[in-house]
Amino acid sequence: MKKLSLTVVKIGGNIIDDEDRLEVFLAGFAALPGARILVHGGGKIATQLAEQLHVPQQILDGRRITDSETLRIAVMVYGGLVNKQIVAQLHALGCTALGVCGADGDLIRAHKRRHPSIDYGWVGDVDAVNTALLDRWIGQGLTPVVAPLSHDGAGQLLNTNADTIAQEIAQALSMAFSVNLIFGFEKSGVLLDIHDEKSRIPVLDAEKYRQLKSQQLITGGMIPKLDNAFAALRKGVSRVVIGQAEHLQALMEGKNGTLIALNG
Amino acid sequence: MKKLSLTVVKIGGNIIDDEDRLEVFLAGFAALPGARILVHGGGKIATQLAEQLHVPQQILDGRRITDSETLRIAVMVYGGLVNKQIVAQLHALGCTALGVCGADGDLIRAHKRRHPSIDYGWVGDVDAVNTALLDRWIGQGLTPVVAPLSHDGAGQLLNTNADTIAQEIAQALSMAFSVNLIFGFEKSGVLLDIHDEKSRIPVLDAEKYRQLKSQQLITGGMIPKLDNAFAALRKGVSRVVIGQAEHLQALMEGKNGTLIALNG
Repeated sequence: MKKLSLTVVKIGGNIIDDEDRLEVFLAGFAALPGARILVHGGGKIATQLAEQLHVPQQILDGRRITDSETLRIAVMVYGGLVNKQIVAQLHALGCTALGVCGADGDLIRAHKRRHPSIDYGWVGDVDAVNTALLDRWIGQGLTPVVAPLSHDGAGQLLNTNADTIAQEIAQALSMAFSVNLIFGFEKSGVLLDIHDEKSRIPVLDAEKYRQLKSQQLITGGMIPKLDNAFAALRKGVSRVVIGQAEHLQALMEGKNGTLIALNG
Repeated sequence: MKKLSLTVVKIGGNIIDDEDRLEVFLAGFAALPGARILVHGGGKIATQLAEQLHVPQQILDGRRITDSETLRIAVMVYGGLVNKQIVAQLHALGCTALGVCGADGDLIRAHKRRHPSIDYGWVGDVDAVNTALLDRWIGQGLTPVVAPLSHDGAGQLLNTNADTIAQEIAQALSMAFSVNLIFGFEKSGVLLDIHDEKSRIPVLDAEKYRQLKSQQLITGGMIPKLDNAFAALRKGVSRVVIGQAEHLQALMEGKNGTLIALNG
């Protein structure tokens, strides 16, 4: 039996922080055919609120160290403000959105990160995604909008990277659906030259990725992102694209962004 | 056919602002037999956050005037912080909670309040409750935890009084369920003497309510609360009790609080 198709889109700060781009993206997202799930990050709003409340922020290897005050801010901004504003806007576009975080309905169970030397604070590494719940919501015509928070089942909310949430959801649902995973980010795709938007690589396979890494043409924060993308493909996700989420239609059609492929 | 029973509980600031009392309440709530829905207010946290962010608050007739900055705070605190913390805690108590606001799944549709002289700001008066959605969630074993926010369907979130949300949900579901509505508040029930907790009126019927109002023994903020309670009974809610939510079991059994009755 042919699987139904499902699109999982992750958007980050570059879209969330820009009202106009968010509106363009949401219109494209609402117009997608078939089932879809939106996973969002938090953007600058959390950082700004932390500043206003005089809560110092510590970033380590691109991950926010989540002390109790920072978690409160994440829950307010990701789970509240950003999530509910997106939900309200999607309804206006005819998309019946349901805004949730990983604690809601026991959607994403996680444990506090264990690390030999660094205490990441209230950061959660994902143990399980409640696919039955997502499946039911999708079947009921609801579009889940997921904030990057998880919980440990013992009363503790945890901060979890939005890329990871999107990847875990995509993987978990790939048993039941043919999943298209779109990682929205600030560049038009994976670039050969980070300063030249025209150097976009249309298709990146595992072999080419190894080459570019060894030539140090792909470095830094792009590596965990791409590792995640390849891992998703290996775990059953049908298609992974990285690019600018406001060009969603073009990303869906392979006319923009970088298509990640196991074999070229 | 006998209707299934459903308990709708509204809790306010007196419980939400006190960790110990909240824990006692949530344990009682999680142990309730049958279907249940929790509606929560925001408590002092929103007021404190507004102070920290230097957003001046205007209260008019007990209602917060909701300007754009105040709405942002309400969405962060009610829709995010308070909602998700309660949800995480309920899971630890074995209750599969689903935290939502009125925008989620188009649960509570409202319009911006129209008033000849006062602009209440982003305050919503309820037009419709999506009972089919609540019915489905309850049937799936989910316990909705509802933040006091609604939306207008055109992209605007609105602030709506938690008592009103509880009442509207209870009324809307009374077609399908035998609904028990518990209004938690700071006193042990309706008191004859507001300074004497022992002066609790165990049963208040419509006739007695009229008498006590005319004798000015019931005044102020208690009047809209009781008007709502009587309205709920007239619109099909089976049972309405007002009392301290941490004594939930006693309120359920008629051993505490004030039972509101149309006829004595």
